Amino acid sequence: MNLEALTQGISHGEGKAIARGMSLIENGADEAQSLLATLHASTGRAYRIGITGPPGSGKSTLTSRLIKLLRSHEKKIGVVAVDPTSPFTGGAVLGDRIRMMESATDPEVFIRSMASRGSLGGLSRKAQDVADVLDAAGKDVIIFETVGVGQTELDIADTADTVVVVLVPESGDAIQTMKAGLMEIADVFVINKSDREGTEKLKLELEQMLNLRPKNEQRWMPPIISTAAQHGVGIDLLSEELNRHKEYLEQNHLLEAKRRKRINSKVRSILQSQLLENFWTEENRNLFDEKMVQVLENKLSPYELVALLIKKNSPNPLS
Amino acid sequence: MNLEALTQGISHGEGKAIARGMSLIENGADEAQSLLATLHASTGRAYRIGITGPPGSGKSTLTSRLIKLLRSHEKKIGVVAVDPTSPFTGGAVLGDRIRMMESATDPEVFIRSMASRGSLGGLSRKAQDVADVLDAAGKDVIIFETVGVGQTELDIADTADTVVVVLVPESGDAIQTMKAGLMEIADVFVINKSDREGTEKLKLELEQMLNLRPKNEQRWMPPIISTAAQHGVGIDLLSEELNRHKEYLEQNHLLEAKRRKRINSKVRSILQSQLLENFWTEENRNLFDEKMVQVLENKLSPYELVALLIKKNSPNPLS
Repeated sequence: MNLEALTQGISHGEGKAIARGMSLIENGADEAQSLLATLHASTGRAYRIGITGPPGSGKSTLTSRLIKLLRSHEKKIGVVAVDPTSPFTGGAVLGDRIRMMESATDPEVFIRSMASRGSLGGLSRKAQDVADVLDAAGKDVIIFETVGVGQTELDIADTADTVVVVLVPESGDAIQTMKAGLMEIADVFVINKSDREGTEKLKLELEQMLNLRPKNEQRWMPPIISTAAQHGVGIDLLSEELNRHKEYLEQNHLLEAKRRKRINSKVRSILQSQLLENFWTEENRNLFDEKMVQVLENKLSPYELVALLIKKNSPNPLS
Repeated sequence: MNLEALTQGISHGEGKAIARGMSLIENGADEAQSLLATLHASTGRAYRIGITGPPGSGKSTLTSRLIKLLRSHEKKIGVVAVDPTSPFTGGAVLGDRIRMMESATDPEVFIRSMASRGSLGGLSRKAQDVADVLDAAGKDVIIFETVGVGQTELDIADTADTVVVVLVPESGDAIQTMKAGLMEIADVFVINKSDREGTEKLKLELEQMLNLRPKNEQRWMPPIISTAAQHGVGIDLLSEELNRHKEYLEQNHLLEAKRRKRINSKVRSILQSQLLENFWTEENRNLFDEKMVQVLENKLSPYELVALLIKKNSPNPLS
């Protein structure tokens, strides 16, 4: 499939073309950049929802239920499931994903799982690129699902228009420890598995936390919803609150601001990779290897080595 | 304090100078680079231990007990406690740290807590720089303690000579989900709070996982130790296994290899920041702002914008 055919296929929402485009991105193929450059003109239409929370909070089941509901409203859905590889969460998520695959036979639902060891920055950028493919393919809603551990759920806050933080009643014990971060990223709180004990207590604690924030009438007040995704309870309410937040963003011209911020970080991330790639010429690699010997012998410090490498490559080496 | 006095103070292991040097690093002060360049010649002597594990596994108590034991052997200790800020772990760790402060009055124990929102890459580099200060200050052992969630415990594996993964009996349920990652980073497994039910079962599961690895006689076989750090149980055993791993590294010339790898990633990380810093001249910032308008209007893609920025700055713009 050449690039033109691929772009056409994606624009028509063809699953095979979408998958192909995503593979180019994931493999870091050169064509990916040309593809994304062409597709860029058709992006910026999809509504982006981030769903995050600790392992075991039932995010995938919730996502799966939400997809069903959105489908009943004829929405076209894309899902980007991001697994920051951690020894402590690891492959668990992939198992959960299988449940989500119920929707996999629906041609208007496209689900992509992404996992990566190594640079999370890179993963988060690729996830955004993959979302852009879904956006250009005409999806109405794109859901980013991620295990909320570490940097990634902070990145997702910049990636999504609305961030849903999923907790379980047992999270109550840990609530004191998550205050600041959660407050910053959550637009909607979900207490999932709310048929278990502790739901009311957790709700109360979250409310108290929210009430401690500086008063500001313009500011969005994150609702707290109880769900039991396994039994399909509370999903309609979640969907309503998502709509309400979307309207809030629209009325306050915040969607555009979020998009600007998103593209801004993307450009910076691309620039960073590109600068590095350009830097590592064979000459610089050799110089690096040569000087590393001195660094290991404590004769040159890492900072001095970098200064030396950069000076050598500045347009005017005598300056 | 001028740089010379500071370097002198650090070399003599003076707490005040060490703290001052670390603050320069954490604040990203210009002097930090000169300081680290000077100190580099005195680094590479300390033995670096990484202690990681899920929240609530008792890492800080374990670290605190280990410090006491090492002190009884006259070892000088530095601790770098790294908190990757996550909404789900957040400030909890800082509370735990207070317990560790028992040793805070001992002039031969220096503890530094580091937390950061934003770039984990940056945090991990600063943690290494801080460790280099401790190394140059003559500490015999440097302990990196980090909450094992996400990228950070993978970074720590590159930072430490020996990595201790701390689990609790309850981790058994999750063991299937953490296999690959854990196997890769752990040199020593600790089952802490082993007075609770499930210790033997977890031990068995870990053993099975370890036995599944490809057979290789040269390869280090991570021991599995049961501890109850709160009651001081098993700390001597941990210390013995740490020594045994250190000897293994020495006999197989792996300490030097680890140091090379560590310095290699450090140079790359410094280079990356430096290239970016040099790139964002006022001219480039203006060009960026100007062209971003077109990107937001879908007339230019992020990848095209980067290509344009880089071309403009290449030594030969006509090429």
